[in-house]
Amino acid sequence: MGILKGMRVVEGSAFVAVPLAGMTLAQMGAEVIRFDRIGGGLDAGRLPLAPSGQSLFWAGLNKGKKSLAVDMKSQEGRELITRVVTAQGEDAGLFLTNLRVRGWMDYETLSQHREDMIMVTLSGDRHGRPQVDYTVNPALGIPEITGPEGFDGPVANALPAWDLIAGNLVVSSLLAAERHRLRHGKGQNVDLALKDVAAATLGHLGMIGDAVVNPAPRTKSGNALYGAYGQDFLCADGQRVMVIGLTDRQWRGLVKATDSAEAMTLLEKRSGKSLRDEGNRWALRHDITEILAPWFAARALSEFAEDFDNNGLTWSVFRTVKEAVAQDPDLSTENPIFEMLDQPGLGRFPVPASPAEFSEVLRDAPGRAPSLGEHTEEILADVAGLDFTEIAKLFDKGVVATGDAALGKAA
Amino acid sequence: MGILKGMRVVEGSAFVAVPLAGMTLAQMGAEVIRFDRIGGGLDAGRLPLAPSGQSLFWAGLNKGKKSLAVDMKSQEGRELITRVVTAQGEDAGLFLTNLRVRGWMDYETLSQHREDMIMVTLSGDRHGRPQVDYTVNPALGIPEITGPEGFDGPVANALPAWDLIAGNLVVSSLLAAERHRLRHGKGQNVDLALKDVAAATLGHLGMIGDAVVNPAPRTKSGNALYGAYGQDFLCADGQRVMVIGLTDRQWRGLVKATDSAEAMTLLEKRSGKSLRDEGNRWALRHDITEILAPWFAARALSEFAEDFDNNGLTWSVFRTVKEAVAQDPDLSTENPIFEMLDQPGLGRFPVPASPAEFSEVLRDAPGRAPSLGEHTEEILADVAGLDFTEIAKLFDKGVVATGDAALGKAA
Repeated sequence: MGILKGMRVVEGSAFVAVPLAGMTLAQMGAEVIRFDRIGGGLDAGRLPLAPSGQSLFWAGLNKGKKSLAVDMKSQEGRELITRVVTAQGEDAGLFLTNLRVRGWMDYETLSQHREDMIMVTLSGDRHGRPQVDYTVNPALGIPEITGPEGFDGPVANALPAWDLIAGNLVVSSLLAAERHRLRHGKGQNVDLALKDVAAATLGHLGMIGDAVVNPAPRTKSGNALYGAYGQDFLCADGQRVMVIGLTDRQWRGLVKATDSAEAMTLLEKRSGKSLRDEGNRWALRHDITEILAPWFAARALSEFAEDFDNNGLTWSVFRTVKEAVAQDPDLSTENPIFEMLDQPGLGRFPVPASPAEFSEVLRDAPGRAPSLGEHTEEILADVAGLDFTEIAKLFDKGVVATGDAALGKAA
Repeated sequence: MGILKGMRVVEGSAFVAVPLAGMTLAQMGAEVIRFDRIGGGLDAGRLPLAPSGQSLFWAGLNKGKKSLAVDMKSQEGRELITRVVTAQGEDAGLFLTNLRVRGWMDYETLSQHREDMIMVTLSGDRHGRPQVDYTVNPALGIPEITGPEGFDGPVANALPAWDLIAGNLVVSSLLAAERHRLRHGKGQNVDLALKDVAAATLGHLGMIGDAVVNPAPRTKSGNALYGAYGQDFLCADGQRVMVIGLTDRQWRGLVKATDSAEAMTLLEKRSGKSLRDEGNRWALRHDITEILAPWFAARALSEFAEDFDNNGLTWSVFRTVKEAVAQDPDLSTENPIFEMLDQPGLGRFPVPASPAEFSEVLRDAPGRAPSLGEHTEEILADVAGLDFTEIAKLFDKGVVATGDAALGKAA
């Protein structure tokens, strides 16, 4: 089923953001066609890989899509993509891309074939230059405030956060434009840039204002929760926990559970600052941590975990990804968003569906990613509307491919 | 104008994700009403603050919304919120929340007042427990793979990435459900959990599969681009740059611009691995960095910046947030998404609009955030449909407030 059932989206993409956008729509029930050049796009072999050499990354970001493999340098290949992108259908004519191919694949040209089409293009920056998460992040200053207190040098994040945010905004933008088309009958062109998404987000979080109006720059604060209290602690059994005192309630719970009310009152007296104020908890975080650290250092996780849960504390355990996958039921099939799939060339592991649960439709089980060009023939017939002879000709000429030929391997 | 003009969304929220969702909709043209308890919600004083003590964070995440201040503990206050959330109007009856108030504010109860309402709730985890970005991230293992190579201990990111991703997914979910309502006349309940969003994202990036099928865990890799080549370098003038060799084209450009073809060929011979393969670039990244480091160390940024740009390299300079705001035109009013606003109590700085540009509507200029309860009277009249006497009574009883009273200050 899926909440977007009936919608058809075509995607010409690579890497994280736009593939994620298409995959998100596919997991909400849209028919999503990703086209790639024969042999695979720029992200076909992106790490992490399975032992077979197949990309786990590609498989993760293209789940539930249909794949068309086509020679994008040939005139016939370009005409075919144009036909697929601009095919008729009330809920079709929707195109997502980050490829920025000028000429035949721009909005002006494509919309001549379907006036009400909607095209969403994600660029690197507003000047149309390529940028990636790894260049946008340093340019905006996040690595300078990430990492241990006093550490000399910028620290990048392991998560491509800007890509993930931008990909989700591509989805919203497409849905907003399609909503407009439903009401007014008009398609349109939508432009976003990865760097603009990041720059706007800095502003939304108050960081641009902070940089302008406050003389003291924000500095690295290790694993502390910025602006209130939250800190990591090492327990007696070597496990590390993160505990949160962001809201007043969380703070009172933490003080109670660690039996530290008396010490906190002394700290308040000594400093002349009330710890009921979150800003004071932030200012006094080192003193607070000094009070709490011995408590955690004296206890194994098992000695307080249940009590923390029962008292409604907000906390968690630090894990490696391997530990999380092995130990946390929320990353297993106990969580209804996950399904165990056994994928040839990849292996058997839990695969996520959409994390959004809509009460009016059943959540689609997560589908595997297609093999490159797996749906070439189906798309040529059903979407491009070609007949058997025309399709055979395109395969013969090598304009399109499926199976091993789509992977660029000799038959 | 705005692409979502005419839509009305009510928001009961705090912190990052849901306020960001409402703000994103507001910046796309929707009328967004945020209600808060008198005195302000949990995030009213969240850092960073302006020198006046006002929250730059709150101002950033509530731009362009209308504010209703109401005593949520009183029966009349609750009835009023119910009335505002479920008010008639074809494009209304849309409610976003992360407050998880049981009973009067759950979907079952609210939808009795408007059958086709849509409610999107973001929880901490699927069990309904509070979780924040700072607890979800350690639980899933990202801090274990963030930070300098060989650094002992987890490193948190300064960006609340999961909140930002979840907030954008709240927007998509609302738009998808509203699309469904337009077609089928039915509203619905939509549930998401922050931890599920993060868990699903790990899966999308291939990290769950990697953790299951590969014996070697992913480790910290400092500022290197994961899976291909990308590294930071210190220049002769003390500036640090990030350079990318992710795609074949970027890699060839980097080798050419740094005149290192010969050294790379020697490395290929020595290692028996072709550097045209991105996985090999990743495996040999330390050797590559050793070759390139002296080149950067011998040059000031100004000696190669223009050449890098002219040769189409993908690269950037590391800056602090302050430097970025002061120096980068993309964070200034040269960028059409930014407008210089002078906000009482906050100061004068560039404020971002939506980063998405829709060709069929003019981009709305970014509006400032409301003061708490600024629109109370207007909302009671125009949305709740109360008459002058009813409104006066609610103010008299302290069920609603505006101005200083809304801030919890004595008149």
